[in-house]
Amino acid sequence: MIFDVMTLFPEMIEDHCKHSILKRALEKEIFSVNTINPRDFTLDKHKKVDDTPYGGGAGMVLMAQPYVDAYESIEKVGNSITVMLSPQGEPLSDKIVNELAEFDQIIMLCGHYEGFDERIREIIKPREISIGDFVLTGGELPALCLIDAVSRKIEGTLGKIESADEDSFSNGLIEYPHYTKPREYRGLQVPEVLLNGNHKDINAFRLEKSIERTKAKRPDLYKKWVEKS
Amino acid sequence: MIFDVMTLFPEMIEDHCKHSILKRALEKEIFSVNTINPRDFTLDKHKKVDDTPYGGGAGMVLMAQPYVDAYESIEKVGNSITVMLSPQGEPLSDKIVNELAEFDQIIMLCGHYEGFDERIREIIKPREISIGDFVLTGGELPALCLIDAVSRKIEGTLGKIESADEDSFSNGLIEYPHYTKPREYRGLQVPEVLLNGNHKDINAFRLEKSIERTKAKRPDLYKKWVEKS
Repeated sequence: MIFDVMTLFPEMIEDHCKHSILKRALEKEIFSVNTINPRDFTLDKHKKVDDTPYGGGAGMVLMAQPYVDAYESIEKVGNSITVMLSPQGEPLSDKIVNELAEFDQIIMLCGHYEGFDERIREIIKPREISIGDFVLTGGELPALCLIDAVSRKIEGTLGKIESADEDSFSNGLIEYPHYTKPREYRGLQVPEVLLNGNHKDINAFRLEKSIERTKAKRPDLYKKWVEKS
Repeated sequence: MIFDVMTLFPEMIEDHCKHSILKRALEKEIFSVNTINPRDFTLDKHKKVDDTPYGGGAGMVLMAQPYVDAYESIEKVGNSITVMLSPQGEPLSDKIVNELAEFDQIIMLCGHYEGFDERIREIIKPREISIGDFVLTGGELPALCLIDAVSRKIEGTLGKIESADEDSFSNGLIEYPHYTKPREYRGLQVPEVLLNGNHKDINAFRLEKSIERTKAKRPDLYKKWVEKS
């Protein structure tokens, strides 16, 4: 898997990749992360990438030319998809993460300031993805979330591949509670059933807790799960 | 505003704060970001912060003692709230971002691996917030999203405070299309109405486009907007 990130702030992407699980997976060459800076493609002598909006209003708009030229400079590899990170997109979900993990290359466009000149959308025709109904200063954190979520699904990224299958959402429910040592902490006990080694009972307890929590915390997911079951 | 981030990977938070708008706002002391590493609070001589789950299963569980002790070491300032970043939480929204921006201090707990020992939730009783129905390797990217989204709402963070008011979601709709120079790019024109300087027409055009887009891309938001209007 190749992740190509188009961003005015490549260090944000590069710095993050120095850490934790991403770092180990990059070292093992399970996937690669490249950055492409549209500022390197501007034809303007001041390296301008944004300008004031037609029709007035606050903020600056990202110009079409540097973005389109930067995009066209990227070599397309295998089964490639282009994603624009934008609050206007479809909300990222575990289902979309699984779909994206099937591609060989994900090219990402990160916005900044007031947003993209509309013609960037018209020419590149990206799949627009949002990480939620809130606004960020740029698309870099969403791009990193997408890289993190997708790369976890790629075999070899996590220590044990099984971990991804038991996560929240993988069965449409949120996760059951976890407990580790000690058995008692500040008077709070680990539930007895987890200590007796009976795996049938343990699985039943965990499923019950998952259902209970989903019902209480995310009635929307619970409703979908009931309809599917 | 004080952001206190409890994390096993403080560099992830610190590195990100070196960039872009966050960096400028931190330099202007509009808010501050601190990190607290639960590993510094472990009583175990090997500095262990995780252990295997009771009842079996893949992955490691974060132990209660280092997290609870780290939490209790943080000085509570003014109107303080504690947030756990977790896929089990309520989905972050522009509305929650506005609520959080009213606090003086936001303490954040970032998970990792399989998750927290349940007793951490029982003792600390955090507000659980998710940035979406997908799974990440840790709570650091969600914490950074939360810091970014909340800090944008604080006066002085953005270049012009007006920018935040015209964003997607601030009126329940996604944003209208933006255009900047040149008037024509690869045969694609800026809509005429944006060039004529008639602000009544421009506002009408933008509202119409916002409604049209929300209806096409986010029928769920459109439905809520219609009900509210």
